[in-house]
Amino acid sequence: MRIVTHISELRHLIRQTKAQSQTIGFVPTMGALHAGHLSLIQEAKDKSDRVIASIFVNPEQFGPGEDYDRYPRQAEKDAEMLRAAGTDILFLPAKEEIYPQPPRVKVLPGPVANVLCGKTRPGHFSGVGLVVAKLLNLVSPDFLFLGQKDLQQTVIIRQLIEDLNFPVELVVCPTIREADGLAMSSRNRYLTPEERQTALILNHTLQHLKTLAQPGATVQSLLEEGHQYFKNAPGLQTDYLEIVNGTTLETLEVILPEENPVIAIAGFVGKTRLIDNTFVF
Amino acid sequence: MRIVTHISELRHLIRQTKAQSQTIGFVPTMGALHAGHLSLIQEAKDKSDRVIASIFVNPEQFGPGEDYDRYPRQAEKDAEMLRAAGTDILFLPAKEEIYPQPPRVKVLPGPVANVLCGKTRPGHFSGVGLVVAKLLNLVSPDFLFLGQKDLQQTVIIRQLIEDLNFPVELVVCPTIREADGLAMSSRNRYLTPEERQTALILNHTLQHLKTLAQPGATVQSLLEEGHQYFKNAPGLQTDYLEIVNGTTLETLEVILPEENPVIAIAGFVGKTRLIDNTFVF
Repeated sequence: MRIVTHISELRHLIRQTKAQSQTIGFVPTMGALHAGHLSLIQEAKDKSDRVIASIFVNPEQFGPGEDYDRYPRQAEKDAEMLRAAGTDILFLPAKEEIYPQPPRVKVLPGPVANVLCGKTRPGHFSGVGLVVAKLLNLVSPDFLFLGQKDLQQTVIIRQLIEDLNFPVELVVCPTIREADGLAMSSRNRYLTPEERQTALILNHTLQHLKTLAQPGATVQSLLEEGHQYFKNAPGLQTDYLEIVNGTTLETLEVILPEENPVIAIAGFVGKTRLIDNTFVF
Repeated sequence: MRIVTHISELRHLIRQTKAQSQTIGFVPTMGALHAGHLSLIQEAKDKSDRVIASIFVNPEQFGPGEDYDRYPRQAEKDAEMLRAAGTDILFLPAKEEIYPQPPRVKVLPGPVANVLCGKTRPGHFSGVGLVVAKLLNLVSPDFLFLGQKDLQQTVIIRQLIEDLNFPVELVVCPTIREADGLAMSSRNRYLTPEERQTALILNHTLQHLKTLAQPGATVQSLLEEGHQYFKNAPGLQTDYLEIVNGTTLETLEVILPEENPVIAIAGFVGKTRLIDNTFVF
């Protein structure tokens, strides 16, 4: 695996790859890797000739008071995990390489950025849109791999790709979970053992509601049931519990398979914000 | 010359070109071509293996009340001019091919879009930014050719390329003028013979001020002189006359070569809005 820190070297390698008509699979990450990330690398290996991963903690997608400074950074360990998983190139730029000056251009994702996590994290998804546009232009991948856990991010990036005609195919991969069902997340390491137990309520609530979400069920009754269910876990401060169309993120009133319903949840356990979601069908 | 109307066919041809390691020069236009456009094609031919031009009158960059509907359209004549100039591929999409649905994502160019023409045409440059981002992703050119006449557009697209890391080199080509000095523009055809005479005041003012703009001259005195000079042409309604840094478009107070000063002018002759500019040094 080659570790590349400069754009000029990355572009050189990309040009070589394209000249050999090899396809590129790209897995952008913020590091602090877990098995979820590695499943994306495996999908990329299955689908493309060359696999490029990036590690970049993007300051533009963190709001004031969020965890940019304390976000876990472990480049050496991550590099070793990516190497073992069969990554060909790791792009590991410094902040100044990606942002040599404050960006002047803004990429605004539109209305879909204003719901779910967008309500609690204003500006987050325009930061995501900016860095993903930059990375797509730097890596020129044929396939982009993202995890389903970040539901809203996948919807926003799908719209970004469509609206700006990026020549890339988005591949959304299933959420990878711990043995007890907790969705893997780089932020899980913030949790104390007690909080780690409390955090299980997120997936338990999703699974409970999924069993109740038969076609024709009303969303309001399901959400009321969900909020009752939370009372089992007083350590959770819910941010949202919603059932939305998985393609448009529009709020639903009734469970119908043709609406591709997804149950999405976010909450704070202690100071740690966690998200999870599950498709109903 | 191959005329391509669908994105799928364009992408196929681009992939072939890249697989042969040929460079692509791209000249985006709104059609109604003149010798200025053809000079861009010539520059593209000199610098790249394959030349792609596009003709697309982009609705997103016209404001309400502007000339989107009456903007001149003459695809057959344009195609013949491009063919004669040595263009390899003409991308000539329908509106629905570029905008199959209203765009949700916005590309906001930042502060540089709020000065000069941006004051009179709010939203114009975000429409330009959107369509240029789309076209760059569709064509994947190595070189992008734009005319100096659209000064603010060149500055905005340079920042777009920098901030979003588009893998393309911007080449700005000199303004091409009629024998009497009028900057070539697709909108010149709107002018009556009398208005055509009046329009000469734009370039005459630029040339007059350029001779006065010695290092150390104050911008205020030059602008006062310019506004006096306009009185020779009562048919012109000036929109702006400004002397700005040609790289940042920031207003200048004193003429200094290191500020790369450019004199920029815009005005209405009858109902037709015309722009022109000249670098001082």
